Amino acid sequence: MSVQLPLISINGVPDALISPLDRGFTYGDGLFETCRCISGRIPLWDFHRERLINSAKRLQIPLDELRLQGYLNKLLLNLNQYLDTVVKIQITRGVGGRGYRLPDHVNPTYCIGIFAGAPLQSSSFLDGVDIRICDLRLGKNPTLAGIKHLNRLEHILARAEWHNEFAEGLLLDTDNNVIEATVSNFFIVKNRQLYTADLTNSGVAGIMRRTIIERVAPALNTQVNIEPISYTSLLQADEIFLTNSVFGIWPVKSIADVSTNLSHSITRQFQHQLIQLLG
Amino acid sequence: MSVQLPLISINGVPDALISPLDRGFTYGDGLFETCRCISGRIPLWDFHRERLINSAKRLQIPLDELRLQGYLNKLLLNLNQYLDTVVKIQITRGVGGRGYRLPDHVNPTYCIGIFAGAPLQSSSFLDGVDIRICDLRLGKNPTLAGIKHLNRLEHILARAEWHNEFAEGLLLDTDNNVIEATVSNFFIVKNRQLYTADLTNSGVAGIMRRTIIERVAPALNTQVNIEPISYTSLLQADEIFLTNSVFGIWPVKSIADVSTNLSHSITRQFQHQLIQLLG
Repeated sequence: MSVQLPLISINGVPDALISPLDRGFTYGDGLFETCRCISGRIPLWDFHRERLINSAKRLQIPLDELRLQGYLNKLLLNLNQYLDTVVKIQITRGVGGRGYRLPDHVNPTYCIGIFAGAPLQSSSFLDGVDIRICDLRLGKNPTLAGIKHLNRLEHILARAEWHNEFAEGLLLDTDNNVIEATVSNFFIVKNRQLYTADLTNSGVAGIMRRTIIERVAPALNTQVNIEPISYTSLLQADEIFLTNSVFGIWPVKSIADVSTNLSHSITRQFQHQLIQLLG
Repeated sequence: MSVQLPLISINGVPDALISPLDRGFTYGDGLFETCRCISGRIPLWDFHRERLINSAKRLQIPLDELRLQGYLNKLLLNLNQYLDTVVKIQITRGVGGRGYRLPDHVNPTYCIGIFAGAPLQSSSFLDGVDIRICDLRLGKNPTLAGIKHLNRLEHILARAEWHNEFAEGLLLDTDNNVIEATVSNFFIVKNRQLYTADLTNSGVAGIMRRTIIERVAPALNTQVNIEPISYTSLLQADEIFLTNSVFGIWPVKSIADVSTNLSHSITRQFQHQLIQLLG
């Protein structure tokens, strides 16, 4: 069966709509995953699934995993013909009345969207990207840190700071630690070791970030240090790269007003290893 | 014409549904107002309207005020028969693709809900309420502070800390300043002066808070100090009251583990003055 993209299904029903009382719409009360999908297969599904389950627990959303997996499998079956797609899974606390209080009985909304994708080896992947530092500072909130939740105004307003002059923008928190970029995490290479931000207080714990830490770096015998990253450390980096489930690894060529002499030798090794891994 | 409540209209269409690509649903990308409405009239509409317009500007949402007013007036016309209702106006950045970047052409979604209301002089208004201090700390974010936006996970998780043992919970920020309660602002009375939190970094600048500061307190010749409020100041308060557009003023009887000997004499004067004002 051929399908037209984008295809969005809500609770298993294609082309359905959302109630204006859905708490996703009224409060951003939910979470999402954005997955690279290759011919109907999500290579990093084990990590996506784990983050989804853990995040739902932290938000106290009673996720029915079998139900989700049923809706997802049904859609993926039709995607064999599509080499590159992006699967977005959004789960909200479902319909509720007025008020922040959790409803007594929650029926989560399962919204799955299939979007057209692009090959991993894009020009940004191959040539690297120019980025900038955002003015907006992320608030610190340990209760929400790490979760890919639906409260995205900070990231939207940060992304609104520029048009298309830059590929990405780095975000600092209110203590001026470098946390992440608007849609990606970052790694610094210094003296052949990797460093990435501690996400205890802010930021999204990206699936590609975890893949680098747990699968790519060990295969390359490279140590990854997870710690607060100051603006000064950023200035002193030998290499910087960005990671995201959909685009993989982007080498950073320059950070406006900050870094221009960045090399890419370790970054290239990580890209090659990632291509092997995603098969 | 008689209408059944709740009644929800989207872009002027009653009982319509929302696209799953609406940025309100995908990112909490929008704002809302919750207004007390008396026989089809919103007594504090001038303040609500001003906050809506200013907040939309700060979020860079191109609000069409005439359009909104048209949708609203049409609904209010049918409410003469209802003494007390609650009008909720929600405006989002409308339908967009994947990605945080602002769409080139934005058609905001105007969602107006009319809900059943209750008389101002409820038992909480008359007898006062018992409240608590929340464990969750609000992140600091000057870019979003003051706006009644749709990113409400902090408040939802704070409200999830208790069931119905308390009427409200006070929220401190990551610097331990007292900012607000989950659905209301707070005022402290000390030596016949009023104090309320500075909202430069966190919190919602409530319409009833503004009404107290600009209309009720001046009528009673009472000074209101807007400044950072420490936990210690809270402990030393003579009186505390909560404010909200829908419930007006609630005297605080006790804060669990903190205050029990709170009096209400100034609070009562403010309540009487408010009743005059809302006529």
